[in-house]
Amino acid sequence: MRSAFHQRLGTLTQQLGLMCAMAGEAVGQATEALLNADLVQAERVIAAQVDMVAVNARVEETAFGLLALQAPVATDLRAVVSAIRIAADAQRMGALAVHVAEIARMRHPRPAVPDDVRQYFTEMGALAGQLAGGAREVLLSQDPRRAAQIRRDDDAMDELHHQLLAELMDRGWTHGIAAAVDVTLLGRFYERFADHAVQIARRVIFQATGH
Amino acid sequence: MRSAFHQRLGTLTQQLGLMCAMAGEAVGQATEALLNADLVQAERVIAAQVDMVAVNARVEETAFGLLALQAPVATDLRAVVSAIRIAADAQRMGALAVHVAEIARMRHPRPAVPDDVRQYFTEMGALAGQLAGGAREVLLSQDPRRAAQIRRDDDAMDELHHQLLAELMDRGWTHGIAAAVDVTLLGRFYERFADHAVQIARRVIFQATGH
Repeated sequence: MRSAFHQRLGTLTQQLGLMCAMAGEAVGQATEALLNADLVQAERVIAAQVDMVAVNARVEETAFGLLALQAPVATDLRAVVSAIRIAADAQRMGALAVHVAEIARMRHPRPAVPDDVRQYFTEMGALAGQLAGGAREVLLSQDPRRAAQIRRDDDAMDELHHQLLAELMDRGWTHGIAAAVDVTLLGRFYERFADHAVQIARRVIFQATGH
Repeated sequence: MRSAFHQRLGTLTQQLGLMCAMAGEAVGQATEALLNADLVQAERVIAAQVDMVAVNARVEETAFGLLALQAPVATDLRAVVSAIRIAADAQRMGALAVHVAEIARMRHPRPAVPDDVRQYFTEMGALAGQLAGGAREVLLSQDPRRAAQIRRDDDAMDELHHQLLAELMDRGWTHGIAAAVDVTLLGRFYERFADHAVQIARRVIFQATGH
């Protein structure tokens, strides 16, 4: 039978999984808003951030409750502290999706992304969604093989990001400086989103296996 | 007489103050490297990141020791968890300074920043150093007035960042796309550096005053 502590730790993990799912949904919708210059979708992503903040607050309360009432030691203690950090990573992923939506909103009704580089953002958006889903699965399964897939997805994101910067810098960009600034920032947001998913997977696997 | 717990919490605060000081030094040196296309200085900032990671590891060990051995509750518990998060903010500030140095190194022997916008980076670099110093002082003093100054410095940073983007977008930028990409990313790094300093001040003041 599981202890009360481990039941509550299970609740915490479920909440973290929910945060990853929310970040994944946010980045998917933000990418649609970006590619379709869809103001309603952009506003939806921006408005939904309060829900993420609320779940994060619940995670913190659950975590503090565990620390204060059960005074865990060793592995259990590290699991709770790790959960607090994972929540911070997931919330940051949500915030980065909001940044994407904000650029879409700022440029509306024009699309922020020129047609030439649309494909990059289609792919980066899909990868970001996959990474958020992967982080959720690693949380729930603690499976190192699933974590290895996250690293591969992150490598693919880095590669796309490099290609995008090369496209901007080397191949006669004709869309002006404002679009270059937007595309630079957008690329950075997706890349950071991926980094946080990797961090989550790394924390879970370190917690589960010690390396 | 202070309890053993509060003595160790004091040690933790000193370590966090050291991390802020290191981040401040790193961003100062990185700004010099950037403005003077100084490769040696850039390499120095990049190499020093391991020291910051080491201090962060010490913070975590101190914090875990406190949580495991003393099982603090209520305010004391929150202080320790808050310290772990402050360390993460300070380490991120150091990483952002490294990103600035990396751009300086990548463009060397050319300067990454065109003369037209040099002044922005001189000022953003000075503000970033001030913010890191301010975060350190808030940590050590827990003084809300000092924290208010951090918010003003952050507002000044945001204003510079907006002006810099306006300079890029509106006023006939003639330095090409590659420089625009660099300047966009650099601006973002300084702005994020400031955000983390604000976060640190906010956590300290919340911890000290409850709001």
